[in-house]
Amino acid sequence: MASAFVPKLYKVPQDLPLDSGQSLPGAEIAYETYGALNDDKSNAILICHALTGDQYVASDHPITGKPGWWDRMVGPGKPIDTDLFYVVCANVIGSCLGSTGPKSLASDGKPYGMRFPVITIRDMMRGTIALLDGLGIETLRGVVGGSMGGMQALSLAANWPERAERVLVIASTARHSAQNIAFHEVGRQAIMADPAWADGDYYAHEGNGPEAGLAVARMAAHITYLSEEGLTEKFGRRLQDRDAKSFGFDADFQIESYLRYQGSGFTQRFDANSYLYITRAMDYFDIAEEHGGKLANAFADSNARFCLVSFDTDWLYPTSESRHVVHALNATSSKVSFVELSANAGHDSFLLPHNQLDRVVRGFLDG
Amino acid sequence: MASAFVPKLYKVPQDLPLDSGQSLPGAEIAYETYGALNDDKSNAILICHALTGDQYVASDHPITGKPGWWDRMVGPGKPIDTDLFYVVCANVIGSCLGSTGPKSLASDGKPYGMRFPVITIRDMMRGTIALLDGLGIETLRGVVGGSMGGMQALSLAANWPERAERVLVIASTARHSAQNIAFHEVGRQAIMADPAWADGDYYAHEGNGPEAGLAVARMAAHITYLSEEGLTEKFGRRLQDRDAKSFGFDADFQIESYLRYQGSGFTQRFDANSYLYITRAMDYFDIAEEHGGKLANAFADSNARFCLVSFDTDWLYPTSESRHVVHALNATSSKVSFVELSANAGHDSFLLPHNQLDRVVRGFLDG
Repeated sequence: MASAFVPKLYKVPQDLPLDSGQSLPGAEIAYETYGALNDDKSNAILICHALTGDQYVASDHPITGKPGWWDRMVGPGKPIDTDLFYVVCANVIGSCLGSTGPKSLASDGKPYGMRFPVITIRDMMRGTIALLDGLGIETLRGVVGGSMGGMQALSLAANWPERAERVLVIASTARHSAQNIAFHEVGRQAIMADPAWADGDYYAHEGNGPEAGLAVARMAAHITYLSEEGLTEKFGRRLQDRDAKSFGFDADFQIESYLRYQGSGFTQRFDANSYLYITRAMDYFDIAEEHGGKLANAFADSNARFCLVSFDTDWLYPTSESRHVVHALNATSSKVSFVELSANAGHDSFLLPHNQLDRVVRGFLDG
Repeated sequence: MASAFVPKLYKVPQDLPLDSGQSLPGAEIAYETYGALNDDKSNAILICHALTGDQYVASDHPITGKPGWWDRMVGPGKPIDTDLFYVVCANVIGSCLGSTGPKSLASDGKPYGMRFPVITIRDMMRGTIALLDGLGIETLRGVVGGSMGGMQALSLAANWPERAERVLVIASTARHSAQNIAFHEVGRQAIMADPAWADGDYYAHEGNGPEAGLAVARMAAHITYLSEEGLTEKFGRRLQDRDAKSFGFDADFQIESYLRYQGSGFTQRFDANSYLYITRAMDYFDIAEEHGGKLANAFADSNARFCLVSFDTDWLYPTSESRHVVHALNATSSKVSFVELSANAGHDSFLLPHNQLDRVVRGFLDG
């Protein structure tokens, strides 16, 4: 994995307490901002990224050179309008785009590897809240996130209810289901089965980590981001660069070629140990459990307005999971709107062009 | 993988022609039979097994010692009643329970490994038809199969239409979808990423093959055999043998422990190269393609009665796939019945106790 880029960093002045009981000293939070903070610091929007996302929401990725992952959503005149808002996006702790994570150096000068503490979504948000403190942002106009980003937004609403006026949760959930955990466990086992993983102690051999295992993990996960309908429409049973089946084990089908490409491309930009830690944090995520077993309790202290968005072909975090959150918010008489959008791309729909999504996002943040 | 058992074998007297254009010389078909063939040889039922199944449909597995995979369905007085019927079940070629496959010895006295020819579902059925010829069975009273077994039943109906009077297809499909191919490709990549796979040439090191990769492949596949609802009901977010999360990478959740068990258990009874070849055959499966691109053409010469069964929570081969077959059969005015059964176990429902399934199977074969 290349790492010759210099992220914008905020150094957390105090140790970060963690749900495990451990703490993280000297944490650094890598972040990007877009637009300008107004005088009364009332126009900040926090965007939270997904599992393999990063802070480069609307700027080119420093490793791949590709446009930001939500470039279509964030910018001047765009649904999250940087002419109006000051947008902040932080790389979560545990990740690998500059924030402190398993590949960072521990106090002994060596990479943490698996000595990095197991973190939770709430711990990630502790890091991000520290950044907001550092930026002098007391109250966010809004917090926005899709997938794991939505989990962070819910965690902020539940644990720091005074810090955001609007909470926009897209294609997400308040807890990881058995099936969600199962897919993540497959990915972790694929990484850990790779001898090059070496119990997480592979950083001395830069570019020689558990790339094969990480690619398999990504391939398995990638299927869950797409819908059966979308896959059929995009690939069907079409062959890749050939007129007939090879009767071999090459990537005969376009879907095979696509998955292999997704798998190998991913290893160029992501750290395998970060994948282990972040999937673990997602699997541990269950806001109700954090609040006495009742989801409504989690939002009892919140005066925020909520908006939940799901996609009808998302089987990773299906509409029923968003509805579950909406019901809990209704039980505490919270201000909540909810829409299920139609899209054929499955979970990934939140990253793709969708006019209705744009209108919902713009309307909720501007209103 | 243990292999100290002696399967019942039929040696195919001629070379088996294959869809690839190659042929398989000296093929052996391992099989089991139950009940007695009547004098006019009119009471034979062929049962076709699924991807990781075998011929031990109603007798103990020679490696695991567990009861046959459809023990509840096949036997005296059971839905497929061996007091009435002579039941035949053959291990498919390419598999590893005695029929010729990648771990068999080629003419040079060494295991085929990846020199084994890539086969199709129709090729598997060529082997099974050869066995039926050897047993003197011209016309089956019925052919029955679930999952890949259903594909074989459809292949028999399409390619040897005079050989079966009844065709019972459970939880299956007439073609592999992009999503089906995608999950199989993940499994294959997991196996091939394991250095112990050694390009398929690992048999010299018995018990030391790509077990880690095969376990990951099995874990990924296993999720697709279950439903989200079933997983939630069976496991939910319950912890395994502990009161609190470990904040580590042990199998904290029951679903993780279960998947690991499924993965490691599988490697004891199955050959990784067979997994590659059989998944490839399934991915290549598209009966319409074999018959000029029109599924109805495949069944134009058949006078058999068909019965299709699907399960409402099966997302691997959903009801729409069975309906697709039914529509094709309707287009050729075939005798076809179809039922979608309710069950919460997903694709695996066909292997589990289900009174309605029992009644459908018994009624269709007895009627």
